[in-house]
Amino acid sequence: MSLPRIAVDAMGGDEGVRVMVEGAALARRRHDKFKFLLVGDQAQIEKALEAHPNMREASEILHCEDVIAGDEKPSKALRRAKTTSMGLAVQAVKEGKAGAAVSAGNTGALMAISKLALRTMPGLDRPALAALLPTLGENDVIMLDLGANRECDTRNLVQFAIMGAAYSRTVTGRERPRVRLLNIGTEETKGTEDIRDAANQLRAATGLALDFEGFVEADKINRGDVDVVVTDGFSGNIALKAIEGAARFVTDLLRNAFTSSLRSKVGFLVSRPATELLRHHLDPNNHNGAVFLGLNGVVVKSHGSANAKGVANAVEVAARLLEDDITNRIASDLGVLDQANFNPVPGIAQAGE
Amino acid sequence: MSLPRIAVDAMGGDEGVRVMVEGAALARRRHDKFKFLLVGDQAQIEKALEAHPNMREASEILHCEDVIAGDEKPSKALRRAKTTSMGLAVQAVKEGKAGAAVSAGNTGALMAISKLALRTMPGLDRPALAALLPTLGENDVIMLDLGANRECDTRNLVQFAIMGAAYSRTVTGRERPRVRLLNIGTEETKGTEDIRDAANQLRAATGLALDFEGFVEADKINRGDVDVVVTDGFSGNIALKAIEGAARFVTDLLRNAFTSSLRSKVGFLVSRPATELLRHHLDPNNHNGAVFLGLNGVVVKSHGSANAKGVANAVEVAARLLEDDITNRIASDLGVLDQANFNPVPGIAQAGE
Repeated sequence: MSLPRIAVDAMGGDEGVRVMVEGAALARRRHDKFKFLLVGDQAQIEKALEAHPNMREASEILHCEDVIAGDEKPSKALRRAKTTSMGLAVQAVKEGKAGAAVSAGNTGALMAISKLALRTMPGLDRPALAALLPTLGENDVIMLDLGANRECDTRNLVQFAIMGAAYSRTVTGRERPRVRLLNIGTEETKGTEDIRDAANQLRAATGLALDFEGFVEADKINRGDVDVVVTDGFSGNIALKAIEGAARFVTDLLRNAFTSSLRSKVGFLVSRPATELLRHHLDPNNHNGAVFLGLNGVVVKSHGSANAKGVANAVEVAARLLEDDITNRIASDLGVLDQANFNPVPGIAQAGE
Repeated sequence: MSLPRIAVDAMGGDEGVRVMVEGAALARRRHDKFKFLLVGDQAQIEKALEAHPNMREASEILHCEDVIAGDEKPSKALRRAKTTSMGLAVQAVKEGKAGAAVSAGNTGALMAISKLALRTMPGLDRPALAALLPTLGENDVIMLDLGANRECDTRNLVQFAIMGAAYSRTVTGRERPRVRLLNIGTEETKGTEDIRDAANQLRAATGLALDFEGFVEADKINRGDVDVVVTDGFSGNIALKAIEGAARFVTDLLRNAFTSSLRSKVGFLVSRPATELLRHHLDPNNHNGAVFLGLNGVVVKSHGSANAKGVANAVEVAARLLEDDITNRIASDLGVLDQANFNPVPGIAQAGE
């Protein structure tokens, strides 16, 4: 089977071409059937490829010098899409020259460019941005939407649940990921009307390939007993950043505490393997690969400051989503949902499968 | 000057009468002019007071056997208000027999009972729940609203800013606390229309005793460079719980890491002073004292699981808010706001002071 190529925006992100190319090369070791379209300055890419001869064979270079700046407004970035590395990587997906695009550039610009070029898939109202977060359990938890949609209605939330579950199947291997809606309490009466209605619809739509388990509060996201946390873009952005900030806050406190006395310094050195484990678990590079779900094509956002291992994780996410044919999986589940909506009694919806 | 008494719901919370009485006694050491009304089972309170003879002299006991349960619905709790320790503590404030009430019981019930008994203060649309969170700086940060109001409009947010600043002046001693609105970005175009309008109004109302410094993202709440974070109750609840959950997540990881090898265990023991410092800084007992702001009277919520030191902090918050006459401070700032709204040009509003 010939798998579609992955287009890599080699110029986006803070770390430059070398890290993007090295990351793609690392990912290719585990997904060696994939080919790549590297978009960016030809001379720089050629130089970076010298260290990765196998990658050289699997790659085509699309030369381009322009880069979208990290602080560039999405509206301006949209106008420059066709001359920039990010825009051309997404364009390659649109034209079928690649199945997925990976970029470490400006998130807002990537979202705007991807939406305009690839369009929302049929049957879906709005795409969403989904990210991976570490947990105390075996697998990362997926949270969406994280800011693509400031306000979301019932139908959006239900569709996000379906898309998140499709992504989670790829990440966790679970056939029926455990899905919950983010809320300010777990009782059925809590939250806005849209959230409560979405819960009712998800409870009723038993034909979907997911287990809907009700509400989750924001302090339980990382416990490891939920695979997909569904929320509107505003709350999701607040929750994601609050978690990142608090994790950094605690590790900063810890660092200050460990450097506050000689005794602590000695203890810190002796227990370094433990603190390394902590760092490893919290390192965003190990949870890299935010995905724009719901477009006609796969677009993965890598952290702007990701190292080569982080980029490799983002490229692997793209590769695995392509292998699992996520766009068709989502389309099929959206079909089940529409059926369930015509027959809102669970028994009938099941019989109709 | 005779300061008003503090009514303590001695029965609410998980830890029982002994801890509530001990906490009040601890607080009284630093605020020895205060007198107390202890509401609950007389025999249990008498017994708890045996260990605190000074407190005995300063206390009156209001006997009552009924307690609002931790999981009791606010609607049911409201009907039982007049026979329960929580209800009678709040009732004492309403009747002028106490200036403030402190309870470690059911938050939703306390909010409902307090709103009905004390009513929202004149000129204010809605009360709010404000809590203290630890920071890397010298002082705790105040965040509000945390769930009293699921949806909030521009005027609510502006009034929350005024109430939060008044509370912060008591906590930090700053005459002009630094206030920011929680948002999903710091650019002026980010967020909902209500948030952007609230920012414009706060920027224009220069007569207020606060410095409005724009938006803050949820990952910067604990940095120590903002004194008051203003948000609607839904987002505030999400942010608060996300921070609590992430802090617990990191400390759980740390504990796992430290117990994963003998070498780490030894290091952990050697560096115990450092990890104790971390625990001290994150201990909710040290940041205890969520306040319902905007009622005709002061109501402080202590954590349900707070120890005596935690209860003492909550009682001290009540004492200091009474000493600072917070209700009149808020009323006066609301007056400035109304003036500013009639004269929205900052220069004119200032001249009118």
